[in-house]
Amino acid sequence: MSIKVKIYVTLKEGVLDPQGRAVVGALGALDFKGVEDLRIGKFMELKVDTESKEAAEQEARRMCEELLANPVIEDFRVEVE
Amino acid sequence: MSIKVKIYVTLKEGVLDPQGRAVVGALGALDFKGVEDLRIGKFMELKVDTESKEAAEQEARRMCEELLANPVIEDFRVEVE
Repeated sequence: MSIKVKIYVTLKEGVLDPQGRAVVGALGALDFKGVEDLRIGKFMELKVDTESKEAAEQEARRMCEELLANPVIEDFRVEVE
Repeated sequence: MSIKVKIYVTLKEGVLDPQGRAVVGALGALDFKGVEDLRIGKFMELKVDTESKEAAEQEARRMCEELLANPVIEDFRVEVE
């Protein structure tokens, strides 16, 4: 069964996000003045071939732990459809 | 009013995603064999200071059109909380 999974990888709170800072600066230069805080993460959509949704979610979590996220500085969230 | 906005920027369908391909290869090397298709996008969380949710959404859409997404190859989605 092919199951669609969405993975969100975000920087942990307290970890500096220089890319987000740069984007806030660029938005300011384009006259978007009301942006207070912007943090950038990764969003992954994938299809996993497993027997059940539960298995797909477990598989995706293992992928995050082993490759897709850096547990020292990043959090991840898995959504199964 | 400080409104939390989430922005998802993804590659349009049909646009090659070499980063996603590389990740599928790396997952295969780690013995995750069931991954069929993986596409990587960006996920942004920001706070916008506007009078209403509608205004925040419009502002975020304009940011995507002008800076955050490349409309030639990317789609974006805005969620207001």
